[in-house]
Amino acid sequence: MPQPLKIAVIAGDGIGPEVVGASLEVLKKVAPACGLTYETTDFPFSAAHFLATGHVLSDADIATLRGFDAILLGAVGGLPNDPRLAGGVIEKGILLKLRFELDQYINLRPVSLYPGIETPLKNKTAADIDFVCVRENTEDLYCGVGGFVRKGTSQEIASQTMIATRFGVERCIRYAFDLAKTRARKHLTLVHKTNVLTFAGDTWHRAFQEIAVEYDDVTTAYHHVDACCMFMVTKPEVYDVIVVPNMFGDIITDLGAAIAGGMGIASSGNLNPDGVAPGMFEPVHGSAPDIAGKNQANPIATIDSLGLLLRETGRIHANAAAVKAGERIGQAVRAATPRFAGKSLDRSGLGTDEIGQIVAD
Amino acid sequence: MPQPLKIAVIAGDGIGPEVVGASLEVLKKVAPACGLTYETTDFPFSAAHFLATGHVLSDADIATLRGFDAILLGAVGGLPNDPRLAGGVIEKGILLKLRFELDQYINLRPVSLYPGIETPLKNKTAADIDFVCVRENTEDLYCGVGGFVRKGTSQEIASQTMIATRFGVERCIRYAFDLAKTRARKHLTLVHKTNVLTFAGDTWHRAFQEIAVEYDDVTTAYHHVDACCMFMVTKPEVYDVIVVPNMFGDIITDLGAAIAGGMGIASSGNLNPDGVAPGMFEPVHGSAPDIAGKNQANPIATIDSLGLLLRETGRIHANAAAVKAGERIGQAVRAATPRFAGKSLDRSGLGTDEIGQIVAD
Ligand SMILES: CC(C)[C@H](C(=O)O)[C@@H](O)C(=O)O
Ligand SMILES: CC(C)[C@H](C(=O)O)[C@@H](O)C(=O)O
Repeated sequence: MPQPLKIAVIAGDGIGPEVVGASLEVLKKVAPACGLTYETTDFPFSAAHFLATGHVLSDADIATLRGFDAILLGAVGGLPNDPRLAGGVIEKGILLKLRFELDQYINLRPVSLYPGIETPLKNKTAADIDFVCVRENTEDLYCGVGGFVRKGTSQEIASQTMIATRFGVERCIRYAFDLAKTRARKHLTLVHKTNVLTFAGDTWHRAFQEIAVEYDDVTTAYHHVDACCMFMVTKPEVYDVIVVPNMFGDIITDLGAAIAGGMGIASSGNLNPDGVAPGMFEPVHGSAPDIAGKNQANPIATIDSLGLLLRETGRIHANAAAVKAGERIGQAVRAATPRFAGKSLDRSGLGTDEIGQIVAD
Repeated sequence: MPQPLKIAVIAGDGIGPEVVGASLEVLKKVAPACGLTYETTDFPFSAAHFLATGHVLSDADIATLRGFDAILLGAVGGLPNDPRLAGGVIEKGILLKLRFELDQYINLRPVSLYPGIETPLKNKTAADIDFVCVRENTEDLYCGVGGFVRKGTSQEIASQTMIATRFGVERCIRYAFDLAKTRARKHLTLVHKTNVLTFAGDTWHRAFQEIAVEYDDVTTAYHHVDACCMFMVTKPEVYDVIVVPNMFGDIITDLGAAIAGGMGIASSGNLNPDGVAPGMFEPVHGSAPDIAGKNQANPIATIDSLGLLLRETGRIHANAAAVKAGERIGQAVRAATPRFAGKSLDRSGLGTDEIGQIVAD
């Protein structure tokens, strides 16, 4: 028998604990049916924990987390205008620290309109909105490179530098091509802004073209990020797999979440496909403090993220039971969503626990 | 009698000459009725001109253009994959050169759903989609700051630097507050990504908060750019005026164009509100070489941009006849658009000349 899958759980703030709780109920049901054994360990990292202890996520915490197969994260973040949390202390201290320190260089974000879920777009169906974004997750404007000159004066200058390395870009593009190859349409679109970002964009574009030659069964396209946003609302059906740098990826995947029915639905995985460190799987939504504890949050995004966690971690570590459980959860979500037809976009209008139960059943 | 308004016309490539032609027909009709005198001078700057002569837009050309009150530009750009035009040679050589050299620090982009025009969003009407984006136009990732290390090797690094100065940010934010003050809702939203871009975002956020104190009749909000893209498709009615740095502004205004009925409709003005140099007014769309010369392009975006040109240039130079003509064109466009109800999104299904004629009438 394989070792039990070790999952670190960072439930986080606001609705985090509720949606994580609902997803773990689903796991409890699906695991035995797939022969999956697992154990979970809770960690307190969150805005609330930071405010109470001054502790965000230390290097020692990262070392501890490396001992796990994967991390499930609910949501971290406090009240929008809390001055004690200004400057992205939680985002940078927890989310980005995990992504960078654990070298989770792929941020995988499926954009699929599920049965029964309503898109805000006219005349678009599940057949039109079914793509995956592969967002580079360890470079770009997210490196924190920059600074100030004469801060606080009328002569203040701030700089913020986007970094693109051949190494970082190439491994991300290769992952995207490999993914595109497994899909029915086998089509990959690079999204950037090469006509203005003539340095970083050139590194991406050259790498993309050079690597494309090795994948002659995958068709390719290039779209400027501004045009991509337009296409996502007017003809999302042009996309199959998108590969995109970190900052633009942040933007287009939120738009993707919107067209696929909103934040209640959007799942994501931050992963290192080489398996050198655990991946971190999280809903795209935030901690939504306004509805926390009210049993109103839609747990689908977290349940689906848990499905991704099992499937991707299982693939990386050749754990067939985990892959099976992950796929089972994906199917269960698709089978359950028609029950939400006509319910509101982000918040399902059903109880968090009730939705979890529907999927579990 | 005031001097005639001197308009430099850069018709450009592809559909540029057609849409500019249609807009000048409208001007011919409206000017006498408003007591406006004007003269136009054609300039050949375009991708075609560059390919034929090797000449993009020189410093001497810029000096010549300074002698005009305003510039009307159709569209510049050649075929998408022409290697002779790689690296943004036309975009940087013409559009960005004009914006930067003429210090057109405001890029004004209205996002209004006109009567009869179809939005791709469900359940949204003209009342929901009616805002203006004030995009900073002379800083940010558009400065061209960056470079390569070990280009072409496996160790290649590219950097691309976003620049934000207090001077540049402040004048843009002040313009946006002044604009918000004139509108019914008096609401201004700053869009940035302060939780990740902790240098450039901080310069923007501090300036925004400090200047807000001077405008106590304007209510304010702050949205992250990813959330903004989501709101633009789920609840665009939250926006009245948006102020946004250059790169994010590029992205959200294309999305804005999409929700307001597509590129056939979206107008823009690049302007220096201090009047030290002429503004440049252009449709948001490109040169669309695939339909060039086929009398299929929708000239509304250019006609509306000409309306903006007259209104804004008239305001800056206290030319009441120009303001009146600009407003008249804006009204004529709104009166004409119901005629396009049910027609296709970007291309109106009516002839370019016919639409021009409808508006002119
Ligand atoms: C919270 C924030 C740092 C994060 C990001 O920008 O990556 C979020 O928007 C996301 O997309 O996961
Ligand atoms: C053509 C390009 C340089 C330009 C920009 O990025 O500003 C265009 O997309 C626009 O929005 O006017």
